[in-house]
Amino acid sequence: MYTPARMTTTSPDIDLAAMIADTEGELVRLVGDRDPSTRGLYEMVRYHLALDGSGASGGKRLRPVLGLLAYASIAGEHQRALPGAAAVELGHNFSLVHDDIEDGDVERRHRPTLWTIHGVPQAINTGDTLFSLSRIALHRLTDLGFPDSTVLRLMRLYDETCLALCEGQYIDIATSASNELMSVDLYFDMIGRKTAALIAASIEAGALLATTDDAVIARYRGFGWALGLAFQLNDDLLGIWGPEQTTGKEPSDVAHRKKTLPVLYAFEQAGPEDRDRLSTLYADGDLSAAEIAEVIAILERTGAREYTRSAAHRYRDEALSELDAAGVVSPEARARLEEIIVSVISA
Amino acid sequence: MYTPARMTTTSPDIDLAAMIADTEGELVRLVGDRDPSTRGLYEMVRYHLALDGSGASGGKRLRPVLGLLAYASIAGEHQRALPGAAAVELGHNFSLVHDDIEDGDVERRHRPTLWTIHGVPQAINTGDTLFSLSRIALHRLTDLGFPDSTVLRLMRLYDETCLALCEGQYIDIATSASNELMSVDLYFDMIGRKTAALIAASIEAGALLATTDDAVIARYRGFGWALGLAFQLNDDLLGIWGPEQTTGKEPSDVAHRKKTLPVLYAFEQAGPEDRDRLSTLYADGDLSAAEIAEVIAILERTGAREYTRSAAHRYRDEALSELDAAGVVSPEARARLEEIIVSVISA
Repeated sequence: MYTPARMTTTSPDIDLAAMIADTEGELVRLVGDRDPSTRGLYEMVRYHLALDGSGASGGKRLRPVLGLLAYASIAGEHQRALPGAAAVELGHNFSLVHDDIEDGDVERRHRPTLWTIHGVPQAINTGDTLFSLSRIALHRLTDLGFPDSTVLRLMRLYDETCLALCEGQYIDIATSASNELMSVDLYFDMIGRKTAALIAASIEAGALLATTDDAVIARYRGFGWALGLAFQLNDDLLGIWGPEQTTGKEPSDVAHRKKTLPVLYAFEQAGPEDRDRLSTLYADGDLSAAEIAEVIAILERTGAREYTRSAAHRYRDEALSELDAAGVVSPEARARLEEIIVSVISA
Repeated sequence: MYTPARMTTTSPDIDLAAMIADTEGELVRLVGDRDPSTRGLYEMVRYHLALDGSGASGGKRLRPVLGLLAYASIAGEHQRALPGAAAVELGHNFSLVHDDIEDGDVERRHRPTLWTIHGVPQAINTGDTLFSLSRIALHRLTDLGFPDSTVLRLMRLYDETCLALCEGQYIDIATSASNELMSVDLYFDMIGRKTAALIAASIEAGALLATTDDAVIARYRGFGWALGLAFQLNDDLLGIWGPEQTTGKEPSDVAHRKKTLPVLYAFEQAGPEDRDRLSTLYADGDLSAAEIAEVIAILERTGAREYTRSAAHRYRDEALSELDAAGVVSPEARARLEEIIVSVISA
C-alpha cells in the first residue's frame, strides 16, 4: 500500500539537471561495449543516443524526466527509478531509429540519421538492439530490491505500450501512403498510440514504482495521457505557426504537406471551395511560399488553428487537474511538472 | 526445488503434432484483431506467420517444439509451457521479417516476403510488432500461476537472447558488406549469437518452467547450444552439398557466394594457388555452373566438407550427451528429441 509518510519523512530534492545526468549515467552503463566482435554495434547505439562523447545533443530526455518526477513526487528521490527512466528513453529511441528509416528522414538533432551513415540493414538492427536493451534496463529494478510483482507489472505496461507504438506507426504509414484523408477521429486514435501512450507509460511507471495505490497510479496515467495529447497538438501548431517556421529557418509542415490535426480539421470543416483548393494544393509536389500562405489562410478561415489550440489547452488543463486529483504531489515536484507542462505547451 | 516425483507420477504423452497445433492455437490468440483501425497490421502479422487461413506453411515451428519437448520431458505435459513456446516463435519470426529486409530476400517459405508486398516501412514496423507480441505472450505464464520469480527469470533469459540475436546479425551484416573475410573463429562467434542462442534459450526456457534445479537447467541449455551449432553447420553443408542443390532446384550457397563455414575454412587452409582462385571466384558477379563446380572441388580438396561435417557431428554428439547428463528425461521425450536431432542433422 501507498504510505503518505514516505513523502513527508523524506526531503524532496527535485533537480532536473541531476535527473538528466543520472539518466545518462544509467544509459552509459547499459550501452557499453560487451565484446570486441560487437563493438561497432554499440558504437552505433551510442552515436544515436549522443552518448559517444561528441557533445552532440541527445534530445530533451523528456520521457525519463517525467517518469523520474512522477516517482520523486511520491517517493521524494529519483535514484531508484532510474532503470525505468532508462527503459523508456531506450524504447523511445528504438522507435526513432526505425521511424527515421520509415520516413526517409536524413537528419535528427542536427546530425545525420543512422541509416544514412551505416545503411538500412544496420540501422534496422541497431533499432532492434535498442529495443532489446530497453528491456534489459528494467531487470536492474530487481537488483535494487523492487518486488517481483512490481517489476512484472511494469513490464506488462511497457510491453503493451510498445505494441501501441507499433499500432500508431502502422496507422501513420498506412494513411501517409494513401490518397484518402484520415478523419479527425482516426488522427486522435493514432496520436494516442504513437505519442500519448509512451508519455503516459513513462509517468505511470514512475508512479507504480513509488506506490501500490491503484487510484493514485491511475491519476498519474491520466495526467500523462492528457499531457501526451497536448504535447502532440502543440507540436502540430508549432509545425505551422511556430517561430522557426515564420522565420523560415526550418521547412514547415505545410511545405511538406504533412496532414496534422489543423489540416485534417480544415478538410472536414471547410466550405466546398476551400476544400477543393486544399485538395489541389495537397495533391503532390512542393508548395511555393504563396501557396503555403494560401493554405495557412484557409486553415485560419476554417477555425483550424483555434480548434487545435483550444484542444491543446483543454488537454493541458486536464493534465493539471489529474495531477491535483492524485493528491500526493510534493510542492517542489508539482512546480517542476507544471513548469514542464507550461514550457511544452507553448503555442 | 525440482521434484523427480513429478515426472514419474504423470504419464508423459509426447505428441509432436499436438505440440505444433497447440502452439499455433496460442499464437492465434495473440495475433487476433484488437481494433478496427489496426486490423491491417495484424493481417500482416498473420500473413507472415502463415496463420491467415491460406494454408501456407509457417515453417517447422522447431523452436517451440524443442521448448515444449524440454518442458514435457520433465513435467510430463506441454500445455503450461505454451506461452514460452509462442514467445520464442514470435521472437524468431520478428528476426526473420527484419532479416528479409536486411538481406533483400524476396521469398520465404514459397511466398513473397512482407516488405515486397507492403514496402519496407510497414515491414519494419510489423517486425517490431512481432517483437512486442513475443513479450506479451510471456505474461500469460503469470495468469497460469507460475511464480513471479520464474517468469522474471525467463524474461531475463529472453531479453539477453534477443540482444544476442541482434549482435549476431550485426556481425553478419558487417562482414557481408566488407571485402575482408571473416575468420573461422568469428564465424563460430556469429552463429553462436545468431542461431545457437535462440535454440538454447527455447530449450532452457522449457526446462526452467519445469524445474528450479539449476544443474538440470544448465544441462538443457548446453544441449540446446550444441544442437543449435550442429543445426547451423548442417545447414551450411546442405547449402553446398544438399540434395536440392545437386538437383539444381534451388540456387546453392556457392552460386550466391555465401561465406559459410566450409568456404571460410577453405580460405584459411587452402594452398596459395587454390586461395587465389577462390578469391577471384568470390570477388563479385554470379558464378557459372563450371565455376561452382570448381569452387566445390577446391572445398573438397582442402578438407572443408569433412571439417564441417565432423564439427556438426561433434556438436550433435555433445547435444546428446548433455541430454543424457541432465538425467531427468522421460523415455518418450528422449526418443522424440533424438529423432529431431537425427532428422535435423542429416548432412
